Amino acid sequence: MFAPLQNDTFLRACLRQATEHTPVWLMRQAGRYLPEYRATRARAGSFMGLATNVDYATEVTLQPLERYPLDAAILFSDILTVPDAMGLGLSFALGEGPRFATPVRDEAAVARLQVPDLNKLKYVFDAVTSIRKALNGRVPLIGFSGSPWTLACYMVEGAGSDDYRLVKTMLYQRPDLMHQMLAVNADAVAAYLNAQIEAGAQAVMIFDSWGGVLADEAFHQFSLAYTQRVLAQLKREHGGATIPRLVFTKGGGLWLDAMRQLDCEVLGLDWTVNLGQARARVGDRMALQGNLDPNVLFANPAQIEAEVAKVLQSFGAPHTDRTKTGPTHIFNLGHGISQHTPPESVQVLVRAVHEHSRQMRQTP
Amino acid sequence: MFAPLQNDTFLRACLRQATEHTPVWLMRQAGRYLPEYRATRARAGSFMGLATNVDYATEVTLQPLERYPLDAAILFSDILTVPDAMGLGLSFALGEGPRFATPVRDEAAVARLQVPDLNKLKYVFDAVTSIRKALNGRVPLIGFSGSPWTLACYMVEGAGSDDYRLVKTMLYQRPDLMHQMLAVNADAVAAYLNAQIEAGAQAVMIFDSWGGVLADEAFHQFSLAYTQRVLAQLKREHGGATIPRLVFTKGGGLWLDAMRQLDCEVLGLDWTVNLGQARARVGDRMALQGNLDPNVLFANPAQIEAEVAKVLQSFGAPHTDRTKTGPTHIFNLGHGISQHTPPESVQVLVRAVHEHSRQMRQTP
Repeated sequence: MFAPLQNDTFLRACLRQATEHTPVWLMRQAGRYLPEYRATRARAGSFMGLATNVDYATEVTLQPLERYPLDAAILFSDILTVPDAMGLGLSFALGEGPRFATPVRDEAAVARLQVPDLNKLKYVFDAVTSIRKALNGRVPLIGFSGSPWTLACYMVEGAGSDDYRLVKTMLYQRPDLMHQMLAVNADAVAAYLNAQIEAGAQAVMIFDSWGGVLADEAFHQFSLAYTQRVLAQLKREHGGATIPRLVFTKGGGLWLDAMRQLDCEVLGLDWTVNLGQARARVGDRMALQGNLDPNVLFANPAQIEAEVAKVLQSFGAPHTDRTKTGPTHIFNLGHGISQHTPPESVQVLVRAVHEHSRQMRQTP
Repeated sequence: MFAPLQNDTFLRACLRQATEHTPVWLMRQAGRYLPEYRATRARAGSFMGLATNVDYATEVTLQPLERYPLDAAILFSDILTVPDAMGLGLSFALGEGPRFATPVRDEAAVARLQVPDLNKLKYVFDAVTSIRKALNGRVPLIGFSGSPWTLACYMVEGAGSDDYRLVKTMLYQRPDLMHQMLAVNADAVAAYLNAQIEAGAQAVMIFDSWGGVLADEAFHQFSLAYTQRVLAQLKREHGGATIPRLVFTKGGGLWLDAMRQLDCEVLGLDWTVNLGQARARVGDRMALQGNLDPNVLFANPAQIEAEVAKVLQSFGAPHTDRTKTGPTHIFNLGHGISQHTPPESVQVLVRAVHEHSRQMRQTP
């Protein structure tokens, strides 16, 4: 059904296999910093118009690959499609973040929550298949979802928040309701990601964008436990290929000792984390992904190259023995790329990752 | 000049001396969650009208002490008074955060920066003296400032930010300018805090509110190094009393190994940090302050009490030997109290800290 994969660097690195260079892709790589994205979005009329149209979603997913030799593509979609399919009414006002028409704020609203009919998310699975076909084997396609906790933040707050007061009030006052919501979210996210895998996603990533706002104990109980509940339900392989699972908790650097126990292949790290120390901490259990500060892309080319080199060197010598697994690094930003990024900066970054990481392998 | 101190629990705990209960105060304890504060602010007309008027500043600083048996008072002021005195023009639009009329965005603007004439900050020192007199020895008075890096964030961005793009662009593109600005800020903050000490502050705290947004290496170079530059210049005693120095970096839990090297007496921690692990990490070098999630105060009384007990137990058994120093804990929130907090919740919190921490000392 799909063309054979030509560049398997990303998938090999996910599975801790040696590669000739360090693979690189960028969170939100198909996005507003690209003029061609803004043009497509203007034609689509709205963000959801873009995300729900298979042709548009395919077009924008491939745009960054036309410009840059990235080692992976990621489905163009939003982390909040699942609660939208639960009936909460997702919309994006211009220049603002996501908003839900009917937030979940009481016992009755929580009781109504169910794993949604996956047919309501067919537009996503159709986009996955369409993108996979359009990629024609160039690089692997990553599917994704928000984590159960991150979905809950938006579902309760109804929008972004700077203090998470409403969702944390529910968490501290009605932990029973919060657990109930998170269980539904986890099972929904697992079904959603499995359907993406069946549709053609070659790896899946869970974005725990708001795990880092939780208190230490609460993070373990309300975020990590439900991320693990998703992971436990995910397909490990499809069509004879292993499907790597990536987990990224923004602000999760404090909790590496717990996160390295997760049943997944790759741990994403934000820019606050010292990659070398993280590698020592996580050990040989998982591949690490990250973690350049997206704001480095506002510096000049020589400075970007220097910062890229620092990240690669912080992780340290990549393993090169093709006969066994070992520590591997997937280069990424520590967060989504800024809409204000000069597109030329991404060119500089991708070239620097490839060239410098090849050199590191030649001169151990 | 000032009345003798009646409750020295906070100062003793800062100096790692045994106390009969764990002292407690709250960041932003004089603030909008109190109706009497809102009434005074309405009379003052604006936030800066409140902060620059000695009588109003004294009145609101003492308001929470009239309600709750807190163990310390903190000067009512803003972290951004220093750049205001540098001529940047601080204002607070209603319902918004701080804003500078003339942000610092280029080489010429950085070159113009100087340690301000401290006479421009006389209203702060007058407030310190007035509050200290009004306290009449009830509890000690804490003075404070923003950290050099946190001041720089606002000075460059001109306001709050969610991506710190402008200040980080300067950091990555013109590190020379950033270092120049931070050096001026550090020397200005040190002079400012020393003047607060001379005016009557019995402890001083540096708020590194935005240290946690920096990449690992950048945090050490651009935040911690300049916090240390401030600390190195601070008076260690005044009028025969030791002046404890407190440092709080929001999101700084990742960097405890470096922060425990700081030349200060107390390290403040936000709610993401496991207090017991932090105590093990920091060892016997410093007292620890924190770290309840402010959103716990939206739960019901029994839940607040349970969460308070968890924080106290996470820190662990307080030391009780009056003949020597040892590990001590100062109870606080992990961040400023929310304006939406029910005032009754603070009553529950303060009582729970005092009662539970006394019990912990009686049943070791």
